[in-house]
Amino acid sequence: MITIHHLGVSQSDRIVWLMEELKLPYKLKWYDRGSDGLMPPEYLALHPAATAPVIEEDGRMLAESAAICEYVSQRHAGGRLSVAPDRPNYFDYLYFMHWNNNVQGMFFSRLAARAGGTTNPVTGLIDRRENGYYRALEQQLAKNAFVAGPDFTCADVMVTFNLTSLSRFGGRTIDDLPNVQAYVGRITKRPAYVEAMRIAGPTAVRPNA
Amino acid sequence: MITIHHLGVSQSDRIVWLMEELKLPYKLKWYDRGSDGLMPPEYLALHPAATAPVIEEDGRMLAESAAICEYVSQRHAGGRLSVAPDRPNYFDYLYFMHWNNNVQGMFFSRLAARAGGTTNPVTGLIDRRENGYYRALEQQLAKNAFVAGPDFTCADVMVTFNLTSLSRFGGRTIDDLPNVQAYVGRITKRPAYVEAMRIAGPTAVRPNA
Repeated sequence: MITIHHLGVSQSDRIVWLMEELKLPYKLKWYDRGSDGLMPPEYLALHPAATAPVIEEDGRMLAESAAICEYVSQRHAGGRLSVAPDRPNYFDYLYFMHWNNNVQGMFFSRLAARAGGTTNPVTGLIDRRENGYYRALEQQLAKNAFVAGPDFTCADVMVTFNLTSLSRFGGRTIDDLPNVQAYVGRITKRPAYVEAMRIAGPTAVRPNA
Repeated sequence: MITIHHLGVSQSDRIVWLMEELKLPYKLKWYDRGSDGLMPPEYLALHPAATAPVIEEDGRMLAESAAICEYVSQRHAGGRLSVAPDRPNYFDYLYFMHWNNNVQGMFFSRLAARAGGTTNPVTGLIDRRENGYYRALEQQLAKNAFVAGPDFTCADVMVTFNLTSLSRFGGRTIDDLPNVQAYVGRITKRPAYVEAMRIAGPTAVRPNA
């Protein structure tokens, strides 16, 4: 049985979503952010990288959303929600499994640039890179119902957080991206998504609180 | 036949390394950075995300190092240098295939923080996250010869650039990480690495230049 160490208002909600999509059992252990908005010490201590999400299996701590999604799909669900190497959309799947970390890198860069003052010479580079990632997504969704092609996959679980919750923290909005907006409208109606957000989304109430 | 669109002094050199390790044929098309140190317009136009590396296969442009490595391994080399889901080190492989993008995100964030002035409130968060990623790597290399376990894999191809070339651009050094230093010493002696750096590394000379 997998335990999801869930940090409140964080991207660890996507692992809850994954488990709900796959209808796999899991335990949820909830951690609140500190008054500074950051991870509490108990969460920092879970994994040497000190990032969320972390899942626990047989006493082993596994970090990194995309690695967790692929691992759970392959080891616990026979590859369901993954895309096999012989499929025509295999590369698209791989590409969008890495999209989140690129976007989050630009999100942090923008935080740093903003904190430094009103003018920052790196802002132009951040804009170019961030807009590039979103442009690639917008173009992909002009031709495909889901980010890796015709079917819902782990890559959708990876991408969605950035299009919904990240703007709460100052992330890029999708107001200028009609295909991405339509996609978010569709994907957030999935029953497993609705259930996962009820359990662990940014407005979820901590259990037994 | 794959064409590697190689941006000079960039992480696209790792795709050359991959092809040399796998002994696969490829064509190399070289692009120099502009006088501003940035990508030239011809490179920006290759892919909607405007990132390096890009490879071309049958007229299709594929971007994102880790996705390219996995794709080439699975589609052109029968999964060689990848790790299959049934192996005990499968998760480690997945984890370190994503490590590069996390580290690069912190690298850009630090660039932005530095450019903003001497004190930046986000610097502490960047330090914590960046050090976490490197701590996870240092701990892994205390127990394993390679980042995903006992064997050389695509994950080594992904990680090494950050430990060698990135400090040229102001990236984190590894002076405080003895296991990582020893690893870099070992891995940079691999004949395929030496050959790849001769062809496309940061001090390589552009062909027919």
